[in-house]
Amino acid sequence: MAARVQYLSASLLKTLREAPADAETLNHRLLVRAGYVRRSAAGLWSWLPLGKRVLDNVARVVREEMDAIGAQEVLLPALLPREPYEVSGRYEEYGDLLFRLRDRKGGDYLLGPTHEEIFTQLVKDQATSYKDLPVILYQIQTKYRDEARPRSGILRGREFQMKDSYSFDTDDEGLATAYRLHREAYIRIFARLGLDYRIVSAVSGAMGGSASEEFLAPAAAGEDTFASCAACGYAANTEAVTVTVPPADPAAHPPLEELDTPDTPTIETLAAHVGAPASATLKNLLVKVDGEITAVGVPGDREVDLGKLAEHLAPAVVEVVTAEDFATRPDLVRGYVGPQGMAGKAFPYIADPRVAPGTAWITGANRPDTHARNVVCGRDFEVDRYLDVVVVEPGDPCPSCGAGLGLERGIEIGHIFQLGRKYADAFALDVLGREGKPVRVTMGSYGIGVSRAVAALAEQTADDRGLCWPKEIAPADVHVVAAGKAVQTELARDVAERLGAAGLRVLVDDRAGLSPGVKFADAELIGVPTILIVGRAAPDGRVELKDRRTGEREELPVDEAIERLIAAR
Amino acid sequence: MAARVQYLSASLLKTLREAPADAETLNHRLLVRAGYVRRSAAGLWSWLPLGKRVLDNVARVVREEMDAIGAQEVLLPALLPREPYEVSGRYEEYGDLLFRLRDRKGGDYLLGPTHEEIFTQLVKDQATSYKDLPVILYQIQTKYRDEARPRSGILRGREFQMKDSYSFDTDDEGLATAYRLHREAYIRIFARLGLDYRIVSAVSGAMGGSASEEFLAPAAAGEDTFASCAACGYAANTEAVTVTVPPADPAAHPPLEELDTPDTPTIETLAAHVGAPASATLKNLLVKVDGEITAVGVPGDREVDLGKLAEHLAPAVVEVVTAEDFATRPDLVRGYVGPQGMAGKAFPYIADPRVAPGTAWITGANRPDTHARNVVCGRDFEVDRYLDVVVVEPGDPCPSCGAGLGLERGIEIGHIFQLGRKYADAFALDVLGREGKPVRVTMGSYGIGVSRAVAALAEQTADDRGLCWPKEIAPADVHVVAAGKAVQTELARDVAERLGAAGLRVLVDDRAGLSPGVKFADAELIGVPTILIVGRAAPDGRVELKDRRTGEREELPVDEAIERLIAAR
Repeated sequence: MAARVQYLSASLLKTLREAPADAETLNHRLLVRAGYVRRSAAGLWSWLPLGKRVLDNVARVVREEMDAIGAQEVLLPALLPREPYEVSGRYEEYGDLLFRLRDRKGGDYLLGPTHEEIFTQLVKDQATSYKDLPVILYQIQTKYRDEARPRSGILRGREFQMKDSYSFDTDDEGLATAYRLHREAYIRIFARLGLDYRIVSAVSGAMGGSASEEFLAPAAAGEDTFASCAACGYAANTEAVTVTVPPADPAAHPPLEELDTPDTPTIETLAAHVGAPASATLKNLLVKVDGEITAVGVPGDREVDLGKLAEHLAPAVVEVVTAEDFATRPDLVRGYVGPQGMAGKAFPYIADPRVAPGTAWITGANRPDTHARNVVCGRDFEVDRYLDVVVVEPGDPCPSCGAGLGLERGIEIGHIFQLGRKYADAFALDVLGREGKPVRVTMGSYGIGVSRAVAALAEQTADDRGLCWPKEIAPADVHVVAAGKAVQTELARDVAERLGAAGLRVLVDDRAGLSPGVKFADAELIGVPTILIVGRAAPDGRVELKDRRTGEREELPVDEAIERLIAAR
Repeated sequence: MAARVQYLSASLLKTLREAPADAETLNHRLLVRAGYVRRSAAGLWSWLPLGKRVLDNVARVVREEMDAIGAQEVLLPALLPREPYEVSGRYEEYGDLLFRLRDRKGGDYLLGPTHEEIFTQLVKDQATSYKDLPVILYQIQTKYRDEARPRSGILRGREFQMKDSYSFDTDDEGLATAYRLHREAYIRIFARLGLDYRIVSAVSGAMGGSASEEFLAPAAAGEDTFASCAACGYAANTEAVTVTVPPADPAAHPPLEELDTPDTPTIETLAAHVGAPASATLKNLLVKVDGEITAVGVPGDREVDLGKLAEHLAPAVVEVVTAEDFATRPDLVRGYVGPQGMAGKAFPYIADPRVAPGTAWITGANRPDTHARNVVCGRDFEVDRYLDVVVVEPGDPCPSCGAGLGLERGIEIGHIFQLGRKYADAFALDVLGREGKPVRVTMGSYGIGVSRAVAALAEQTADDRGLCWPKEIAPADVHVVAAGKAVQTELARDVAERLGAAGLRVLVDDRAGLSPGVKFADAELIGVPTILIVGRAAPDGRVELKDRRTGEREELPVDEAIERLIAAR
């Protein structure tokens, strides 16, 4: 049986009055100040006794709910050979994010950022027939990513705890079921953890695949921005927000007209010169896609999200165009590029959906100091490919109902993907089907940031006095404070042992030489939901119960206090 | 609540009739055949569902007993910065055993083989006063060592699970207490695990420090050899066996006499030529210690253990002498070296304790084709340093009682060290003492190979039919076999659910299309202690209970079987 009563007098606990200078976010400041975690190096954290308990509690909830959907727990190595990641292409795709190393024989290895490849190999080895499927495997394991800017304490570490699971099915219906089971399990998990969260549509990034949703916990420290619609409940990662503009009739516009526009190489100078809003102009951003110069057309008042563009075009490499590139292409007049006569000829032309067939624009005329107006999509130029690549802004139309979207920040605590057959194809993962022929397996991959959930919980539940854990996750059920001299300390220890014997997890602040004020402040900072104070009324056999969140206090006889805590367990 | 009933029809379990060709040891063969573990790469193993359960059970026992001695659980990173290991000197000392890597900024990191440095830093950061001590911290964590020859499956992997703990005290008595607490906890842990083990004296190797004992589980697959005395119970790692020979009177021997001994450069040719046993001759092995030629004198019938020599002389580097080295030293006559006139002059002279003062030897005369007899230690030569460096052989005298020692092979499952102040000195770890002055902290370090204990248990408890787990460690309490058709399968599932509802962990073999024989063989291979067979008598409501170890079987009514299993829980 684990030690249920933890005496602070015998604990290695050091609370801090001041947060470390580099701690920018609430969870970072409080988890360090309250002695839950300690930095070992950039992005590498030690979990101290209180932190380890909270981490274990989160892992326990995750484990129970994964078991409940019939997932089987395994543990794969974190140190992995290069070969399977070569097969999938991710050894290169991950770039600097991957920790790579050599063993004593010169063999190439990596520290696993996520384990699709290894699970695919495992199932290929173990499953031979459709009868062996479906199966869901999971692990709660240490993962590694060499973040460029590890920050926010444990929120974005380079070594972190993750639950990753993988589903294997012979058909799309099976995958949809595994996806739904995970979605429901995640809803139960985050509810039990007491996390406020939104489920948002997502693009799947380097993971490949199709359907994908993120679980985001709204928080100021969040690194993800998501769009949400107050009218219909739609929510999506901003990278996944789509725009639909109905086509109009190209013939409804006057003919194209060139304009003498000296010294107007930017949208601002052009709009001022012609006396039109920036939104009436067409901005043509030049980029290189795998070395080929490509134009991206968006309304003049919008910004291109280069990360989003790169995601869409991956694995192709997207780079900005340099002066040297212009020097090799005298047909491209810097500041005066337009798609008319050029799109599909001088360059491939990618456009935002707002540049819809039938819309008319003011844009460059491909000659110095000259623009054109009434440049109509579908009449004066064609678009090779539509992509949602503009930065989403508050008030943009909801793709679902058309109302204005709001933008919020959130912490990604979970992510579910329908991978499909990407990895099964790479590893030729087939099983014998019901009809006796090989069937290619379809997969899903599902993650929960276990250590990150601790940060998100701290962020969402803390107040100005400190941490404030939900009951199921707290490092203890009760924090007993001995506020006084020997008589208080003795009673506090006795109460703690009685609570411990009844199965409650108890912290007892029996440290000598500290004032009650210091102990009260530490109790608030540590954030156990219920504080039991053994103070002035101790000689009369009375103690105080205090609710950490509400601050409500009540004095009552010690036996009654103990009974009530046991009953509320 | 974790899933208590596991249906094999829904499990990713594949048992193998044949062990992998490279599996040399029993635990490796059986753990792979029974589907507990799977090799991902050399020395890198995946724990499959059954294996994960056993691993968790071992970890749980370790955790409970560590908590019981007041140790506090933490979790430190496995990816560690180079600097602290530079401070301790272990970054170099570990040599090829250490996995080293660089991050994206070119910073040097390593994968932790053990964490003395980081725990020392942690306590230096958290503890300021003697009041903060003593403290014992532990973690159950993934460790990394780049073994030259990873083998025996999980027994010697390159990534493995270890419990490591560290004690911090202000005085030697405190350290002795922490050491004793660990020793007692280890005794309880290995007893609960059902492991047969010996506690043996050990040298501490690269860890530094003084008192040290190993817990070795006798097994054919063991990689450690230890010496034990049937007479008095003494046991020690062979590297730690010492020899004491009382000094005799050097004057009791006739004077030194040179002998013409052509063509006798080896002990064998010399012994044959002079008609004396090899044990009467003195072998002088030349080595280089940090580049300096050094002679090591041992009786002619004994071998020098170069590893043991290197351990004694660490951190000095020990190398064998080459022909080139001889070329630079014409005073050293190859095959005819003796210590007389040379020891302490031509070379430092290290000797085995058997070369005691007053003993007489036949040895080289430092001239070609010439030896000498009656070469007496303390009269004709002096020894600079005595070290126990010969390979221990069966029948060597017990250092405790003098009876003949036996040699056995064992698996190192635990190791306890009194480190003393080695790391505290390196990191200047002081706390304010009771008298108001800084006191240097003294440390202990204590390990249990958690994954290795699984291998040791498999090795010790298996029989020719398969694995055979002790109750507390087994992946389930009962293995229910549905041996027949629908009626049997239905009853088996019903029985399993009733047992699961009562809190037992149950495996149910409800796989379709397999003969009872195959299922029985798999049950024996998997090794759950109790097998419940739902077979021919199922229509009469009768089942069979079988003890996996003894093979005893009993048929009884199903309700009675369930009651008995619940009662025996």
